[in-house]
Amino acid sequence: MTDDRFIATYQVTSEPARIAERAQALAIEQSVECPLEAIGDLWVRDAVLGRVAGIDEIAEGRYAVRIALASATAPAEPGQLINMLFGNASIQPDVALTDVELPPLYLKAFGGPKLGSDGIRALAGAHGRALTASALKPQGLSPQSLAAIAGRLAAGGVDLIKDDHGLADQAYSPFAARIAAVWRAVRNSNDSSGRRTLYAPHVSGSLDDMRRQLDGIRAEGIPALMMMPMIVGLSNFHAIAKEAEGLVVLAHPALSGATRIAPPLLLGRLFRLFGADATVFPHHGGRFASTPQTCRALADAARGAWGGLKPCLPAPAGGIAIDRVAELLSFYGEDVMLLIGGSLLAAREQLSEQAARFAAEVAAHGR
Amino acid sequence: MTDDRFIATYQVTSEPARIAERAQALAIEQSVECPLEAIGDLWVRDAVLGRVAGIDEIAEGRYAVRIALASATAPAEPGQLINMLFGNASIQPDVALTDVELPPLYLKAFGGPKLGSDGIRALAGAHGRALTASALKPQGLSPQSLAAIAGRLAAGGVDLIKDDHGLADQAYSPFAARIAAVWRAVRNSNDSSGRRTLYAPHVSGSLDDMRRQLDGIRAEGIPALMMMPMIVGLSNFHAIAKEAEGLVVLAHPALSGATRIAPPLLLGRLFRLFGADATVFPHHGGRFASTPQTCRALADAARGAWGGLKPCLPAPAGGIAIDRVAELLSFYGEDVMLLIGGSLLAAREQLSEQAARFAAEVAAHGR
Repeated sequence: MTDDRFIATYQVTSEPARIAERAQALAIEQSVECPLEAIGDLWVRDAVLGRVAGIDEIAEGRYAVRIALASATAPAEPGQLINMLFGNASIQPDVALTDVELPPLYLKAFGGPKLGSDGIRALAGAHGRALTASALKPQGLSPQSLAAIAGRLAAGGVDLIKDDHGLADQAYSPFAARIAAVWRAVRNSNDSSGRRTLYAPHVSGSLDDMRRQLDGIRAEGIPALMMMPMIVGLSNFHAIAKEAEGLVVLAHPALSGATRIAPPLLLGRLFRLFGADATVFPHHGGRFASTPQTCRALADAARGAWGGLKPCLPAPAGGIAIDRVAELLSFYGEDVMLLIGGSLLAAREQLSEQAARFAAEVAAHGR
Repeated sequence: MTDDRFIATYQVTSEPARIAERAQALAIEQSVECPLEAIGDLWVRDAVLGRVAGIDEIAEGRYAVRIALASATAPAEPGQLINMLFGNASIQPDVALTDVELPPLYLKAFGGPKLGSDGIRALAGAHGRALTASALKPQGLSPQSLAAIAGRLAAGGVDLIKDDHGLADQAYSPFAARIAAVWRAVRNSNDSSGRRTLYAPHVSGSLDDMRRQLDGIRAEGIPALMMMPMIVGLSNFHAIAKEAEGLVVLAHPALSGATRIAPPLLLGRLFRLFGADATVFPHHGGRFASTPQTCRALADAARGAWGGLKPCLPAPAGGIAIDRVAELLSFYGEDVMLLIGGSLLAAREQLSEQAARFAAEVAAHGR
C-alpha cells in the first residue's frame, strides 16, 4: 500500500439498483463534499476526490463499500483522520464505518502504544498469565473511602486498579486529594506484599485540565492513567498519551458505542493507533449488547500484528463476575486483562478475599 | 427546579414487563455504576444514586424514561456532563438520550453564546431578514483558489463564508496561508461594496492546535470561526468558545449524527449551552435523513427562550439549493441563517451572480 490513499470500508444499506450511486455519493461526501460540476481543478478530481474501490453484497440489501480516500486530506492528526473517515457520513443513518486500511505514514506518525502489553506486564510484574483489574466505585465516595477500597483490592493482589470513568473532579472527591489518597493506600499495600499493583486515575476535561491532572499523577509517582477518547476528543487523547510516556495509558469506551463505528475498529485499532496501552470494552453477556464475534475481532485488532505497533492489551469488562473467569480466559487466552468492578465491590468487607479469589482464579487458569 | 439534580430523558426499547427494571438499571448505570449491594454509604444511596422520575409509554415497546441524576456527579464541565448523561448508556443499543432539564447552575456556569443571533446580525450588518451563508470547497484547492471563491461569494453579498469542515491544515492549503488569503479577498470585497461579509475559518485538532489557530484568526482580524464539538471534544469546544469572545462561534455537526443523542438536544441545546452563536445542521430533504419535526425542534432548542441564554442562530444546510429558499424561510421564519454550499459553487464562473441571487431571494422573502 502506498501512502497516497487510505481505504475506508463502510456498511451501507441500499436497494441493489441504487448502491453504485450511493457508494459514489459517499466517496464525494467524505472527500470533496460538493457536486462534481463544482470542481474545476483537475488535480482535485484526480488526487483528492474519493474513489469507490469495491462494492460487495454481504447480505440482502447490505453492502460493504470500500472507498479510497486521499491521505493528503487527512494529515496525521487524529481528529482530522476521523473527520475524513466518518465526519459527515455519521449523520447518514444508512452508513456505518467498519474498517480502515491505513498506509505506513499514519502508523509511523501516530506510533501506537508506547508500553503495550509487555510494558504493562513489566510494570505490574505479571508474566505467564492474564492480568486482573478492578475499578473504584461507587461515584459519591470520599477520597478516603475510595482509598480504603483500593487498599483492599491491592491486598487481594489485583494487578491494576482504575478510577471509575465517572470519577472526575467532584466536590466530594477532588482529583488531587483522590489520587494522593488512593495511591498511598496502593503503595502501602505494595510495600508490605512486595507486589506491584498499578493505579490508573481517570483524567478528563479540556486538554488544559488533563495536563494539570497528568502533572499531579507524575508528581505522585503514579504509574498509569485512563482517558475517554471519544469525550476528550481523539486529538487530545493522543496528545496526552504522548506526554504520558512511561505511564500505562488506558482507554475507556464512554460515548463510543453511540457512534456507528464498528467497535473493533474504534476501540481496538484506532485507540491503539493513537496510543492506548490497554483498551476497556464491554464483554458479551454483561450489561452491554456485544457479540462474541465483535469481542474477538476487537481483541484481535488491539493485540494482533500491525506494522511495527506494539500490542494494546484488551480489557473486557462491563458486568462480568468471577464465575466467568475460566470462560473468559478460554475465549481470550492469557494476553488479556480481565476487569471486574461492581461484582467484586459487592463483597464489601470481604473485598480483599474476593479480590484474592479473582487473582488466584486467573493465575491458576490452564495450570 | 433546584440545583441538586438534572433530569435526563431517554427513549428506551423494552418489553412492558421489564421496563421498570430496565429504567432502574439505567439510573444505576449513569450514576453509581455498580450493584446496589456494593453501596455501603447512605449518603451515596440518597444523594448520588440516580432516581427514576417517570416512565411513559410513547409507542408500543418504546418508553420515555426520566431519570434524576445528581448534579454533584457532574460539576459544570462539558465532558463530564455528557459522560454522566450518556457515557456508558451510549454503548447500550436500546437507549437514546432525548432531552435534559438542567438546573440554573449549569446555565450560569457555561453561559451559552456570547454574541448570539443579535451579535451575528450586528457584526454582519444584517437586520430584518434571514442571513445567508456559504462554504469554501472543494477540499484540495490552494489558498489562492479558495480565496477566489470567497471573493466571488462576498461580491454576491453572502453574509457569512465558512471553511468546509474538511479543511484543516493540509499541505495543499495550510491553515495560516488559507485564512490570510481568504480574509484578504473578503475584506477587499467588503471595502468596495460597503458590506460586512464575515469569514469563519475551521479550527481543529488538539486544544493546543486550536489555540494557535485562534491566535492566527485574531492576528488577521477575522471575525468568526467554526469548530466540530463532537470531534474536538465538548470541553475543548467550550474552552475555545470562551477564549474567542467577540468572535462568532459556529458549531459543525460532524460525528454528531452517529451518537444516539437527539439532534435538537445535542446540536440545538447543548452546543448553544457550551457557546455556539450559530449551529449548522442538516435540513430535511437534502443529503441527510432528517425529519421536519426534528428540524423544527432543533431550531426551537437553539433560539427559543432558555433561562437568560442568548439565542443561537440555526443554520440549516446539507444539500439545499436556491430553489428551496422560500420553502425554508416559510418553515424557519427570518431568524435563521441559510447555508448553501455545493449547489452555489457549481455555478463556477457565475458564482458571484448566483450568490447575489441567493442573497436577493432571502432579502426579498415576505416583502
